[in-house]
Amino acid sequence: MKKILVIHGPNLNLLGEREPEVYGRVSMKTIDAALKKMAKANGVAVEIFQSNHEGEIVSKIGEAKRKFDAILINPAAYTHTSVAIRDAVAAVKLPTVEVHLSNIYAREAFRHESLVAPVATGQISGFGAASYELGLLALVKLL
Amino acid sequence: MKKILVIHGPNLNLLGEREPEVYGRVSMKTIDAALKKMAKANGVAVEIFQSNHEGEIVSKIGEAKRKFDAILINPAAYTHTSVAIRDAVAAVKLPTVEVHLSNIYAREAFRHESLVAPVATGQISGFGAASYELGLLALVKLL
Amino acid sequence: MKKILVIHGPNLNLLGEREPEVYGRVSMKTIDAALKKMAKANGVAVEIFQSNHEGEIVSKIGEAKRKFDAILINPAAYTHTSVAIRDAVAAVKLPTVEVHLSNIYAREAFRHESLVAPVATGQISGFGAASYELGLLALVKLL
Amino acid sequence: MKKILVIHGPNLNLLGEREPEVYGRVSMKTIDAALKKMAKANGVAVEIFQSNHEGEIVSKIGEAKRKFDAILINPAAYTHTSVAIRDAVAAVKLPTVEVHLSNIYAREAFRHESLVAPVATGQISGFGAASYELGLLALVKLL
Amino acid sequence: MKKILVIHGPNLNLLGEREPEVYGRVSMKTIDAALKKMAKANGVAVEIFQSNHEGEIVSKIGEAKRKFDAILINPAAYTHTSVAIRDAVAAVKLPTVEVHLSNIYAREAFRHESLVAPVATGQISGFGAASYELGLLALVKLL
Amino acid sequence: MKKILVIHGPNLNLLGEREPEVYGRVSMKTIDAALKKMAKANGVAVEIFQSNHEGEIVSKIGEAKRKFDAILINPAAYTHTSVAIRDAVAAVKLPTVEVHLSNIYAREAFRHESLVAPVATGQISGFGAASYELGLLALVKLL
Amino acid sequence: MKKILVIHGPNLNLLGEREPEVYGRVSMKTIDAALKKMAKANGVAVEIFQSNHEGEIVSKIGEAKRKFDAILINPAAYTHTSVAIRDAVAAVKLPTVEVHLSNIYAREAFRHESLVAPVATGQISGFGAASYELGLLALVKLL
Amino acid sequence: MKKILVIHGPNLNLLGEREPEVYGRVSMKTIDAALKKMAKANGVAVEIFQSNHEGEIVSKIGEAKRKFDAILINPAAYTHTSVAIRDAVAAVKLPTVEVHLSNIYAREAFRHESLVAPVATGQISGFGAASYELGLLALVKLL
Amino acid sequence: MKKILVIHGPNLNLLGEREPEVYGRVSMKTIDAALKKMAKANGVAVEIFQSNHEGEIVSKIGEAKRKFDAILINPAAYTHTSVAIRDAVAAVKLPTVEVHLSNIYAREAFRHESLVAPVATGQISGFGAASYELGLLALVKLL
Amino acid sequence: MKKILVIHGPNLNLLGEREPEVYGRVSMKTIDAALKKMAKANGVAVEIFQSNHEGEIVSKIGEAKRKFDAILINPAAYTHTSVAIRDAVAAVKLPTVEVHLSNIYAREAFRHESLVAPVATGQISGFGAASYELGLLALVKLL
Amino acid sequence: MKKILVIHGPNLNLLGEREPEVYGRVSMKTIDAALKKMAKANGVAVEIFQSNHEGEIVSKIGEAKRKFDAILINPAAYTHTSVAIRDAVAAVKLPTVEVHLSNIYAREAFRHESLVAPVATGQISGFGAASYELGLLALVKLL
Amino acid sequence: MKKILVIHGPNLNLLGEREPEVYGRVSMKTIDAALKKMAKANGVAVEIFQSNHEGEIVSKIGEAKRKFDAILINPAAYTHTSVAIRDAVAAVKLPTVEVHLSNIYAREAFRHESLVAPVATGQISGFGAASYELGLLALVKLL
Repeated sequence: MKKILVIHGPNLNLLGEREPEVYGRVSMKTIDAALKKMAKANGVAVEIFQSNHEGEIVSKIGEAKRKFDAILINPAAYTHTSVAIRDAVAAVKLPTVEVHLSNIYAREAFRHESLVAPVATGQISGFGAASYELGLLALVKLL
Repeated sequence: MKKILVIHGPNLNLLGEREPEVYGRVSMKTIDAALKKMAKANGVAVEIFQSNHEGEIVSKIGEAKRKFDAILINPAAYTHTSVAIRDAVAAVKLPTVEVHLSNIYAREAFRHESLVAPVATGQISGFGAASYELGLLALVKLL
Repeated sequence: MKKILVIHGPNLNLLGEREPEVYGRVSMKTIDAALKKMAKANGVAVEIFQSNHEGEIVSKIGEAKRKFDAILINPAAYTHTSVAIRDAVAAVKLPTVEVHLSNIYAREAFRHESLVAPVATGQISGFGAASYELGLLALVKLL
Repeated sequence: MKKILVIHGPNLNLLGEREPEVYGRVSMKTIDAALKKMAKANGVAVEIFQSNHEGEIVSKIGEAKRKFDAILINPAAYTHTSVAIRDAVAAVKLPTVEVHLSNIYAREAFRHESLVAPVATGQISGFGAASYELGLLALVKLL
Repeated sequence: MKKILVIHGPNLNLLGEREPEVYGRVSMKTIDAALKKMAKANGVAVEIFQSNHEGEIVSKIGEAKRKFDAILINPAAYTHTSVAIRDAVAAVKLPTVEVHLSNIYAREAFRHESLVAPVATGQISGFGAASYELGLLALVKLL
Repeated sequence: MKKILVIHGPNLNLLGEREPEVYGRVSMKTIDAALKKMAKANGVAVEIFQSNHEGEIVSKIGEAKRKFDAILINPAAYTHTSVAIRDAVAAVKLPTVEVHLSNIYAREAFRHESLVAPVATGQISGFGAASYELGLLALVKLL
Repeated sequence: MKKILVIHGPNLNLLGEREPEVYGRVSMKTIDAALKKMAKANGVAVEIFQSNHEGEIVSKIGEAKRKFDAILINPAAYTHTSVAIRDAVAAVKLPTVEVHLSNIYAREAFRHESLVAPVATGQISGFGAASYELGLLALVKLL
Repeated sequence: MKKILVIHGPNLNLLGEREPEVYGRVSMKTIDAALKKMAKANGVAVEIFQSNHEGEIVSKIGEAKRKFDAILINPAAYTHTSVAIRDAVAAVKLPTVEVHLSNIYAREAFRHESLVAPVATGQISGFGAASYELGLLALVKLL
Repeated sequence: MKKILVIHGPNLNLLGEREPEVYGRVSMKTIDAALKKMAKANGVAVEIFQSNHEGEIVSKIGEAKRKFDAILINPAAYTHTSVAIRDAVAAVKLPTVEVHLSNIYAREAFRHESLVAPVATGQISGFGAASYELGLLALVKLL
Repeated sequence: MKKILVIHGPNLNLLGEREPEVYGRVSMKTIDAALKKMAKANGVAVEIFQSNHEGEIVSKIGEAKRKFDAILINPAAYTHTSVAIRDAVAAVKLPTVEVHLSNIYAREAFRHESLVAPVATGQISGFGAASYELGLLALVKLL
Repeated sequence: MKKILVIHGPNLNLLGEREPEVYGRVSMKTIDAALKKMAKANGVAVEIFQSNHEGEIVSKIGEAKRKFDAILINPAAYTHTSVAIRDAVAAVKLPTVEVHLSNIYAREAFRHESLVAPVATGQISGFGAASYELGLLALVKLL
Repeated sequence: MKKILVIHGPNLNLLGEREPEVYGRVSMKTIDAALKKMAKANGVAVEIFQSNHEGEIVSKIGEAKRKFDAILINPAAYTHTSVAIRDAVAAVKLPTVEVHLSNIYAREAFRHESLVAPVATGQISGFGAASYELGLLALVKLL
């Protein structure tokens, strides 16, 4: 059974309460439950990880090489500032899908550039919680 | 039954033959067949339109307001240069998903900016022909 | 009798319905009627043309040299992207007034630059439908 | 009777003699006479003010709130450098039309940006002395 | 009794020894003592936290929503690079004052931009240890 | 007794009426009264000066060298455009605190850069009328 | 016999009359006659096509793959704005020579960048009508 | 006898005391005396004017057309911000020499650009008080 | 005996497996062994530390002041994004050599700028594992 | 008989061996022989000069005014950095054709700008050794 | 007797014939004669040197340290491109005056920046041949 | 025996006297002696060359292909301006190490970019004369 690592970046633990007009009212737990259900239905396994620490995310991706077949990541704020996460994604060479809840291109200019996107397989942005589900489907198709 | 307008931008008629290392070997016809099949399975109707003319795409979107419930568009080269298509999308205010076959963020710098993205609902980029299918699914969820 | 060519650029056919908080609720037809009436009152003739196609607008301007004495143009989205329309205006060397319904300087940064303005006689922006009427008056004064 | 404040910015007292190939040969006095005549014909009153001092123009606009119904301003050189005039226009919230004798978009790059335009109602540029008259008409329509 | 969370960012544990010509000779302990004394005098409680870890600061702010009434933060080096701290501040929506020991506008260009400032209530910069005290007073006034 | 010169820049005479959603509803007179009271309580004298003229502010600062011990200035719009005020502040070498009612970093990009800040002692921004009071306290501490 | 597609971009139908100080007094017809004569002399066939429509040029290039051995193109105004024509040239992978009548590097800055040049074989600019003839010779050598 | 208008810009009244490490210890009076003496020796008359007001300098230049044969100006801080002074210099079309005490190219980047220089006859920068004397000599040669 | 702190930044734990075409096939362990051997031969001690956490690296450098005589650091991805590490290096004022395995100037543009280099003693880049050894030799010479 | 000066810029003496994937395998000698042959056939004389020294090329062009009727130059690396060669070309005012072996617009960004092109008659780029021959033909047509 | 080295940069040997509308009709010889005469009158010696070679100018300046008391240099085209001449001027630390015949600030943008100016004592630009004479006078005053 | 070409760029002949606070007090001769001694100890031969002429350095590198096995170069001022030296290094394809005495990243912004670095093997900067020795060791390791 293929294993997919799901990574939630910084502040996503606050989902549902945090600026709901931007990020919606769905909590991280609800998203995780939906992903697990969808994974089961598609015959893949998911492990879910949330961290506010750039270094922990880097380490988690670095260890993923031998343990997982693909990565689904919402790098959140680190999308725009972390060369370290980019380098980790490039290092492990796993199929990687970058997702965003909000349409990052309809927000502040500094959110328009993703340092991760050029080394990811693809990017899905703007569909709220559904961005994760579409990302998981994309990985299922890729695997 | 909800109706979705699918728009293929310039040069997509060449798909399959055109730079297959970038765009893959799947032809536009194959994509269209897959979309129709998926639409049927999801209980929505699709109408598919390809044009190399910015003006025709603008007109098509302008007319969509009364005829369609949503738009799935790959603006191709016009993604980066057409304020007119952006304005048309903004004018009709239909749910609109922008898709790209290739990961536009892993290519030349001038392909990193989409004029359409800020007025679209969301963007899906980098999954080859599957980008269209994920986009259709996203619209099904939105409708 | 002096003849003035009036050109409406892309998406102006949607006027009245399209983002009325930006463009107002007056339709293109109403504007056209007002222009014709004002033309009559001032002893000039107007011919009105709308197109979503950059190429058609270029051709129309190219043909204007022998048929018209002046041009009143709202290049809309092409204001900011069309070197071809700029070149056409420069080629025919007719008095040309550029008009905009909205105040383009109070909108997104990419709408602040007009490629047409440097080769036009003058520019009028921000008065809604009245921009066209002021533009026609400006041409009457110039002719 | 509606009252309109007309403001001429720096160096406009030199009009007629100053670079006539750019600004024309009409003097400020001639423009003022034409504006007064046109105001009378349209049933509005105008008060005309010229100053080379940014601070005086700021004060004049600040006092306009209670005394005038609209402002017609050619900020001349201060168009491109005065945040203070912009702030004054924004503060009084009167309908304000910005006019320019020359087509500022056909001149040096530093003249292409107006700090005042984004807070004005609209802008008219490039028609010589007629820019003022069109501006007055625009205000008459707005009032 | 209102509770204020005081956050010292990276390298502030070195205060007093670190480049004293820039940051002064007052240690973090001395600042903390002064803040506690001032808090007492003003009838508010302070909790003080120092971390070199961006992730820990993000987590601390995220948890502040329910435990504190306001935040006083010197993001130090993260001022200029952390979208994650900015997002955390925006997420919890508490009154937040950003302080800096040195006048960041009199230093290297990369220190002139604060990613946090646009989502903070206000910023105080350049008064050495007194910046913290003024910041605390500002919060007392705001609460 | 130490003497502090308080300078209000352009348009601050309109305070209370001017864009209250940005600048608050407190008038300049109320601020002045509060500053005088606070000065008295802290054993310092204040002289207060408002001008819309860059040149008058430059002259006032130039004369301050012998008459005052410190300057509290809200350069308002001139913050972003006046090299002359910057040079005057640098010339007199008095402790100088720059204050702003609004959080200038949460507004238009052109308000993010202060030409005065690099030569001031420090800057306080975003606390409404309280910015002045905190600035006065900062000077009291510095003197 | 090798076949070469010659494409004239927008406004070139006006050649001879259009800004003769920039583009010369030779008409498109005269150029076409010269090209045909030279083609004959060199044993190649030419088909000549002019359009003001970006989309028509894109389509023409897209169809060229099977019908022609090389392309000689003066993209005119679209040189600087058309990613679609660039993508079409890249898609068909035929030897392609880009020509310009005027020296585009001696004109406005926005004419210095060609979006087509990086995917063309080479570029010839500045020799008036002779640019076309040199371009045809270049293709004859390449074929 | 030829008459030369000498203009000292803002803060030059502070010369001798103001940042002597940058501007030297010579006062404006000493410079003026030297200029008068040199003028006499060269058979020309000088009138000297200092102002901290941009508007006064603009007016003085505007009036110079009929009263003077040339202008010697140190625009000081207004060098870098005043389009109005530039326009005044361009308007009067008198031989104009711009001088600076310090070498403006060895200072902050924002002092490297002079808005006045492109419309002046020439510029002399970096020789302290001698810059004025060399400037006067240059005008004597030009007249 | 002089003590040198060796710091490996993020993702360097993956060395040998990670993009070997860029970083080579030598593992971190092999580099560490070589450094220890070379240290011994040169009569200095080395302590080696790897972390993916910016904060841990900042803390380690902050503590180095009293424990070490010099620092040899490969900040890896944090080279380009960490003001905090830069500030830590500047704070401890130890001789510090920055090394890179790959030639960062032959890679993506965002890798050309090091935030650490301006406060380091020197930089060595492009010699693979030998960059560390040359860096250690440089420190031996400096101590 | 018309005389043409042919100038080869720096490193062109290495042609044939130097990066043949970029510059081809034809040596400078072979190109020279072809040019001489073609010159003879067209009734013009050529003198050929190669130098790695910017100054020698400047001198050669400076002397060309009286000795030659036209210049054919491949400025190679100096294309992008030499204002001196540009000034020399502008000074002698001879018809000058700039040629490049490779398509400079398909290479690194710093090779896209030619300082010489704006003062040359025209430019030919991307046809390998044939660029020189086309350039000679262009000059033959111009003379 | 003080000795001054006069350096003429590239293309100045062409003076008088070269673009006389920009550089005037005075030849280098005439300028040299005037400088020698003026030197004599002021009791200083001049040695004059012209070169088109950046390296020769660098060497000449490098040798000047022991032989001359000051340098008068017109770096011409190398003004804008030569870090080597800048470094040479900085290395010898002699009083150095940079002169230009034309007003470089009224010409192309790339001529507005001088790499030499920041390390020179001062700059004189725009007075034709008189720029040299004023420069010599400036050095006489400085010595 | 492997042969290494050592190249000293412009102004390095002045070493020891030239700005010793930047470049140190060691002369070029001392460096050369140290390099020769170290070469001997490592069983390689060095030939040392200094020139102020870009063209001579280009020629020397061009000739190195057959005579040397590697290049050690301090391009000095030409580091930042010479595409010709870059092209020469790229052309000969020898292992090439770029060295700098000073830490170029701690100096003026224009010294931060090296045109040579992207085509060199590696770069060593900031260790004074030791930069050369480390560079020689790096080449010994590479050969």
